[in-house]
Order: sequence, then structure tokens, then C-alpha cells
Amino acid sequence: MAKAYVHGYDLRENARLQDQATTLADLLHSDTAYPDGSRVLEAGCGVGAQTVTLAAHSPGASIVSVDISPKSVAQAEQAVRAAGLTNVSFQQADIFHLPFAPQSFDHVFVCFVLEHLKEPRAALQRLKTYLRPGGTITVIEGDHGSAYFYPDSDAARDAIRCQVELQSRAGGNALIGRSLYPLLVTAGYDEVRVSPRMMYVDSSKPALVEGFTKKTFTAMIEGVRQAAIAEGLIAPVTFDNGIADLYRTTEPDGTFCYTFFKAMGKACMSDKRDAGAGL
Amino acid sequence: MAKAYVHGYDLRENARLQDQATTLADLLHSDTAYPDGSRVLEAGCGVGAQTVTLAAHSPGASIVSVDISPKSVAQAEQAVRAAGLTNVSFQQADIFHLPFAPQSFDHVFVCFVLEHLKEPRAALQRLKTYLRPGGTITVIEGDHGSAYFYPDSDAARDAIRCQVELQSRAGGNALIGRSLYPLLVTAGYDEVRVSPRMMYVDSSKPALVEGFTKKTFTAMIEGVRQAAIAEGLIAPVTFDNGIADLYRTTEPDGTFCYTFFKAMGKACMSDKRDAGAGL
Repeated sequence: MAKAYVHGYDLRENARLQDQATTLADLLHSDTAYPDGSRVLEAGCGVGAQTVTLAAHSPGASIVSVDISPKSVAQAEQAVRAAGLTNVSFQQADIFHLPFAPQSFDHVFVCFVLEHLKEPRAALQRLKTYLRPGGTITVIEGDHGSAYFYPDSDAARDAIRCQVELQSRAGGNALIGRSLYPLLVTAGYDEVRVSPRMMYVDSSKPALVEGFTKKTFTAMIEGVRQAAIAEGLIAPVTFDNGIADLYRTTEPDGTFCYTFFKAMGKACMSDKRDAGAGL
Repeated sequence: MAKAYVHGYDLRENARLQDQATTLADLLHSDTAYPDGSRVLEAGCGVGAQTVTLAAHSPGASIVSVDISPKSVAQAEQAVRAAGLTNVSFQQADIFHLPFAPQSFDHVFVCFVLEHLKEPRAALQRLKTYLRPGGTITVIEGDHGSAYFYPDSDAARDAIRCQVELQSRAGGNALIGRSLYPLLVTAGYDEVRVSPRMMYVDSSKPALVEGFTKKTFTAMIEGVRQAAIAEGLIAPVTFDNGIADLYRTTEPDGTFCYTFFKAMGKACMSDKRDAGAGL
């Protein structure tokens, strides 16, 4: 098991992930549509938060979604069926030991997965073996160091740092977004291009104030309160002040910024770079 | 004199500002074009780094560019003439005491100016008096808290914080970008919309590595070395390590992120909001 999650599997977390997907869908996924007949591997589908959008945008593609958690796979399948989508099949599997033939996919899609892995580069290398030559990978990740806001607050930044530190202790990397370019290049992908997707929120966008600043970002930070205090990373009062200050940014004069990174790369047409790929 | 500059007026600084404008022109200005016959006030033109782009994009508009520094005004005029542009007139003037009739402009353009002012809201309120009802203001500012990079570096962040602190001590605000929305709204503008412009740099974009990460951002931080050390904000070795780490982000596996904020607002059609504008 190469995954170590900070995010939980409880119901509230699922609700948050669904909220997040709804709010972010356009920003992150509107430019991802796979051709009819193409075979797409979604590696790490979780509870299906992104799968529904992915499948809806590529109705003629045949998508195989896997996750290491059988429970998540079951929930993802339910979400996709509930949305009336029929172009996804599901399978429980570990990204590092997938039950597929080499070069059996045209495209690989990986969203909010690498941040949880101890060895994201190794995962990318492994995933490349399932891509046909010239096939593409699409990777989407956040970066919690991209969060800033008005009014600024030391306590809020301290609370965010707790999440980053906990994810790091669990073997993940909450700042992974900014490093997608070198990760994909050193994993051996060609033509790597990174496109940042900035979420900017002010009170002229009430749906984002609710859906993103409150229910996605602040809820996620709030979720690590117990662990952060238990690990001695922060005083309870500082954490609580930080959360209050994050909510403060949702008042009429507040603003909130966060950036996701979407990267694309191609599997090499030959094996020439596989041995010594790099920068 | 409400202006207090951290950026200097020396030749190297001018070269940096020109480099910056060339590299950033598309990102910041490509969607600003004023109609033929419209009267535009550029408030705070500096050495004309943005004026050339502004005038070239709106060849039929009549632009009046002012700056508090006579020397800057002379340089700006030279830059605009050298570019063969004839639709700009120049005048030395203080934003807070402009020699123009009320409501005599259709549009106001303010770029990299508010960050230097002790009272940016008061400046915006003052500028509004020169706009005809329904006229627009466009404001562009950076935000140094939006800078993050790979590899991450505490020393680099410390060096950046020196610039932010020095600008704050001089009465300015290097983090002003994120607060443009409340600033414009509380200054009484209507229909305020903020559009962030993120500069993302990796080694697939060598012109930005040179033109932005090295020659714009890192050069600007490097420029405060002496002042930061003189004010006791940082140890020389830490500052120098920070600069080295910023250059490190320009190597093939490095990435660099920075966000500018472009805001637009309208002058109210009536005076109803002038007395008690706010959020």
C-alpha cells in the first residue's frame, strides 16, 4: 500500500469531496474530453467525485476507474450509476500493481492522487507503462502553499501549515502542484505542459464563497484540528483563531486565492528516453 | 506627496521596469483597448513602461499620462515618442491634486501605483471624481505574497518578506493585489470585477525564466539587499542564500509562480453611493 491518506473516509469528507468537485468541475475539467472509442484509465478515482465529470465530458470514451479502497470504488460506482453514466467500469486495484496489459490505454487521468503518495514519480513511471506510445497522461493536483487571502492572518497560515505538515508526515505532499512539471519530465513523459487553474474568490461570487472557500478549503483545514493538536503542531486557540480568520475571508470585503495545477504529458513514441529521462 | 517609493530611479531599475513590461504586456494588457475618441487618464505612468503598451493598444484614444516625478514623466515621454506613438500627452502632477476638470475622462488606468501609496482608497476616491458617470477605472497590481516556487526555500521566502516589510515601512503595500476588490468597492466604484493574472514559469518557457523569474522578480528582491540589511531585517548570508535559491528555481527542474490582479470598476451613474459607499 503506497497510499497514506490524510483526508478521511467519513461521510462529511465525502460530502466535501462532492461539493468540491461540483464547484471546481468547470475550472479543472472543462478542457478534458477524450475521443470516442478511446480507452481511458482513471488511476485513483476515490469516491468518484471527479469520475462523474470525466465520464460526462467523454461520453464516447471507455473509462476504467480504479482505487485502492474497495469502499471508495463501491461509492464511486454508485455515484456514476446515479448520474446515469454507463461508460465507466470499476475495479479495486493498487496503482503500483494494476491488472492491465502494458500499453493498453490511450489516456491516463490522475486527479488529487499524487499528493497522497510517498513516491509520486514512481507512480507516474508505472502508469506510463500502461499507455500506448503517444498516449497522454493528465494530472491534476492542488498546492496548499498557493493559498492566500484578505485579510491576511498569521493564525490562518499556521493552521494551513498544520495540514501540510500532517500530510507530509503521512508520506504525502500538499505542495505538490508546483512540482508537477519536473515530476512528469523526470518520470519520462514528453511534451510536458502545466496549466495552473487559479480559484479567485470575492463576494461578487457567492457560490464560490460557499462552495470553495468555506466548504472546500476551510472545511479541509478544519478537518485536521484534532490530529494537529494531538501531534503538538499548534495550540488549540491558535488553530481555532486561524479557522475563524479563514471564515473571516468570506465576509463581503474578504478575498481568497488558491491554485490547482493541471499537467499533461505524452508517453514517448520510442523507448529512447525511458532509461535516462530527465531534465 | 503621498508617494513613497521602494523601487529606485536608477538606470538598472528602469531597465528592469522595461523588461517587466515587455514580458508581462500580453498577460496584463491584451484585454485593455479603449474606443476611438475616448479620453483616458493614466495616473502614475512612471517611466512609461506600461504607457507604450497602453497607447499602442488604443491608437484612437487620447491618453493623458501623469506622474509625480518630472524625471519619470520626461523618460516616459521619450519612451512613447521612441515607439512612434502620438496619442499620449504628458504632465507632471500629483494624483491627489490633478489639474483636470471633474468628470473629464472616460477611463482611468492605474498600474503598479497603489502599492506605493499610503492611502490607496483615498487615491481611488479622488480619481473617481475625474471620471464621467459610467466611466471605468482599470487597476493592475502585483502581490508578493502570491510568489511560490519549486524548490521551496525558507531563505527565499525570508528575502521576499524583506521587500514586503520595506515597502510597508515606506507606507506602501506589496500585498495589495489580493485586496483590490474591497478597495474599489469601498472607494465607491460599481460593478467591480477582479481578474487574477497568474504568471507560471517552468523551463519549457525559457523567455519567462529569463524575463520574469530572473530579470523581473528576483532582480527586484535583489534590489533591496542593502536596505534590508541596513534595517536589520535579515542576516546578509540568509538574504544571499535566499537570492541564490530564487535563481535555483530557474534551473531546468524549477518552477516559479506569481499573480497579478487586474480590477475594473465603474463610476456610479448617480451620486447616490458617494456618501456611504461600502460593502
